[in-house]
Amino acid sequence: MGLSSNHLLGLKGVPKEDIQLILDTATTFREVLERPIKKVPTLQGKTIVNLFYENSTRTRLSFELAQKRLSADTINFTKSGSSAAKGESFKDTVRNIEAMKVDMIVCRHESAGIPKYLTQISKAKIINAGDGRHEHPTQGLLDMYSIREKVGKLEGLNICIVGDISHSRVALSNIYGLQTMGANVSVCGPSTMIPWDMEKFGVKVYNNIDKAMAENDVLNVLRIQLERDAGVLIPSVREYHNYFGITQERIDKNNPNVLILHPGPINRGVEISSEVADGSSQIILNQVTNGVAIRMAVLYLLGTKSEE
Amino acid sequence: MGLSSNHLLGLKGVPKEDIQLILDTATTFREVLERPIKKVPTLQGKTIVNLFYENSTRTRLSFELAQKRLSADTINFTKSGSSAAKGESFKDTVRNIEAMKVDMIVCRHESAGIPKYLTQISKAKIINAGDGRHEHPTQGLLDMYSIREKVGKLEGLNICIVGDISHSRVALSNIYGLQTMGANVSVCGPSTMIPWDMEKFGVKVYNNIDKAMAENDVLNVLRIQLERDAGVLIPSVREYHNYFGITQERIDKNNPNVLILHPGPINRGVEISSEVADGSSQIILNQVTNGVAIRMAVLYLLGTKSEE
Amino acid sequence: MGLSSNHLLGLKGVPKEDIQLILDTATTFREVLERPIKKVPTLQGKTIVNLFYENSTRTRLSFELAQKRLSADTINFTKSGSSAAKGESFKDTVRNIEAMKVDMIVCRHESAGIPKYLTQISKAKIINAGDGRHEHPTQGLLDMYSIREKVGKLEGLNICIVGDISHSRVALSNIYGLQTMGANVSVCGPSTMIPWDMEKFGVKVYNNIDKAMAENDVLNVLRIQLERDAGVLIPSVREYHNYFGITQERIDKNNPNVLILHPGPINRGVEISSEVADGSSQIILNQVTNGVAIRMAVLYLLGTKSEE
Repeated sequence: MGLSSNHLLGLKGVPKEDIQLILDTATTFREVLERPIKKVPTLQGKTIVNLFYENSTRTRLSFELAQKRLSADTINFTKSGSSAAKGESFKDTVRNIEAMKVDMIVCRHESAGIPKYLTQISKAKIINAGDGRHEHPTQGLLDMYSIREKVGKLEGLNICIVGDISHSRVALSNIYGLQTMGANVSVCGPSTMIPWDMEKFGVKVYNNIDKAMAENDVLNVLRIQLERDAGVLIPSVREYHNYFGITQERIDKNNPNVLILHPGPINRGVEISSEVADGSSQIILNQVTNGVAIRMAVLYLLGTKSEE
Repeated sequence: MGLSSNHLLGLKGVPKEDIQLILDTATTFREVLERPIKKVPTLQGKTIVNLFYENSTRTRLSFELAQKRLSADTINFTKSGSSAAKGESFKDTVRNIEAMKVDMIVCRHESAGIPKYLTQISKAKIINAGDGRHEHPTQGLLDMYSIREKVGKLEGLNICIVGDISHSRVALSNIYGLQTMGANVSVCGPSTMIPWDMEKFGVKVYNNIDKAMAENDVLNVLRIQLERDAGVLIPSVREYHNYFGITQERIDKNNPNVLILHPGPINRGVEISSEVADGSSQIILNQVTNGVAIRMAVLYLLGTKSEE
Repeated sequence: MGLSSNHLLGLKGVPKEDIQLILDTATTFREVLERPIKKVPTLQGKTIVNLFYENSTRTRLSFELAQKRLSADTINFTKSGSSAAKGESFKDTVRNIEAMKVDMIVCRHESAGIPKYLTQISKAKIINAGDGRHEHPTQGLLDMYSIREKVGKLEGLNICIVGDISHSRVALSNIYGLQTMGANVSVCGPSTMIPWDMEKFGVKVYNNIDKAMAENDVLNVLRIQLERDAGVLIPSVREYHNYFGITQERIDKNNPNVLILHPGPINRGVEISSEVADGSSQIILNQVTNGVAIRMAVLYLLGTKSEE
């Protein structure tokens, strides 16, 4: 059986069987990554375009490595290299790229909904690599994979997402995916960073990090956008750290067994202390490794779909 | 039999047999592009450098895809990444690149004649990807291929190139190539955009788009350089659209069977209306697809030449 | 037998057997570069990251070609594309890249010692592609290879490095490597460009180019950093050329058999005249070709080391 959809636009509405299939397939590719020859010929002769209209290092690198390890041909296309400067519409740019016969498009864009729009104007299979404040499904999947790998299950776990929930596509993908897999999801952050209608997502809201830490098995700690948020959503970076920063002291006091995730890049001393970032509670670099495996799984499952 | 030359610098003087061979070879590669595995091992172990001293999206992407689908190793080299800033001469840069043992160089440059100069200082096979106002031979070839694919022939067809003929390397490559293949070529545009000595090319000159449309089977509509031309060569963009823009109304009135080509990127509402750009008279996206096949054909025919 | 180290950080302390092995292995790859199919499957499935925090054209190109010709998967990572702008530390960036399971990192950095630091924070094999004023070992190796190829040996040769010795990582790698191989190394330049404690390296110091040329078999002529040095370390570019520039006249007068090397990019008319740069005494473009072979040898020897 394959995935039920031709695209991966988000985790909202994705059936449990699909998520299960992606996580299980990623387990196989995770093993491939430990081999001396980290490469399989699965997508040979397929063309994948990485359409990144927003800066990205680790996500683009992770996708590019996943593609090369599946033997696909990859083309990188960034906004600065686009014909937008020549007055070409986004739609025309995409239709031109598609006319060169690409099989898949991995898209990151600052506007929510662009990956969905791509499915309407292109025949290629579309993977959302982050769109505005909407979703970042492969990040959600790699977080779930990493938790499952460490704890052995997702169902019944209490998992809290900490930070700026309002502006986070990582938070949204985690909420949808984890709830589908049977976890109890909550969020924690200052009120200025939590949507007022958060309850409609069926998640508990904490404003106290100590309480959140004590009552949850896992904390997924989001990055604070230093340049954007300080003085606006939060009084200062130091204040945020004092009230919501994850420190070893807090872990020791509230929940020594809590598992800490972070999507990176981390701000040491802001949302997470250096001690915790390098300590035994966290699995931050496992997430990075698993991200390649998850992306290989999604690319493989979508890329071979029509041939089943 | 192979091509008569080791390089593709332009279509001027290229014999009919060579053009025929390229178009026929492209037909084979056009079929490869429809396969699930769009890749052949033909140029494995060959190194191709894309030397792009002028910005380009679709031409570079098209060449890069063609190269990867022929299994060549490709290196991109742009002006901004060059040693020119360190005071190195263009000749020394090229001889350094060549010393790394490259087989072919695909070159775009703002100065006419640079690709020919490359043949004098390098042993690599050279493909011109557009040099100043001189030629853009693979664009000419893909236009011819697309017309032949649609109409079934080139000989005897009346084909008019519309727009800024004076500054267009696309126009020149079309004129040379189409005339060799037996088409009757004409041009159409405001007088400020037509060279005063156009007759020496043996082409008819129209200043009236309605007349040009009525008397030709095919219009190849060039892009207006908005940022450069408005207020200089033409009073305004709107004025140009009124007098020379390709609209459905004009097509219906003058020649409902006319075939519309455009090298892209298109300016909707300037040289071509949105209705026509998306309508049934045009084959703009076919041109893009065929461009990959044409470039595969040229790369293949030149890349395997010495081994015949 | 393989190399004695897992990394190539510099030529200081590298045993003679290792240098010999690299030079001999490069001879094999030098032959591969003359074949129609310049590619071997040796590093298939290996991932190499080119971490270039300092601009580079020829070194990066040379490494990238070497990697592709060994069939490795390569990823380019530059400072501008890094997460440094998001406040991530260099260490965290590297550990993230490594977590994606890369086998080797080729690193250029403006700070001396960074490649060594990489060996402490990463499990990947590290190749120094130039770090500050410290070392540039593959340049040293390709210089040695090129001299040996031309003269037949290194032992007992008198070799003088000419130019800004104080700021040159090329000079240092040449001194260490050549001394290990039994050459008599000297340096020549204006006093402002020679470290005051040069004698501790066991090299003779010349301030007179005619004398240096007369007494040496080989001159390795360094590039003058025009933008940085004129008016500071030297009165003017013209003055430098008059006193230290390598001209045909000087060669004819002092030592018609002298062999001229230059790491490029060359400043014609500054440290070397155009006549000499294109003349029969120099092997500048051989160095470029040999550079690819040397890098293939180093990548191969390190990349296959654990499997021996």
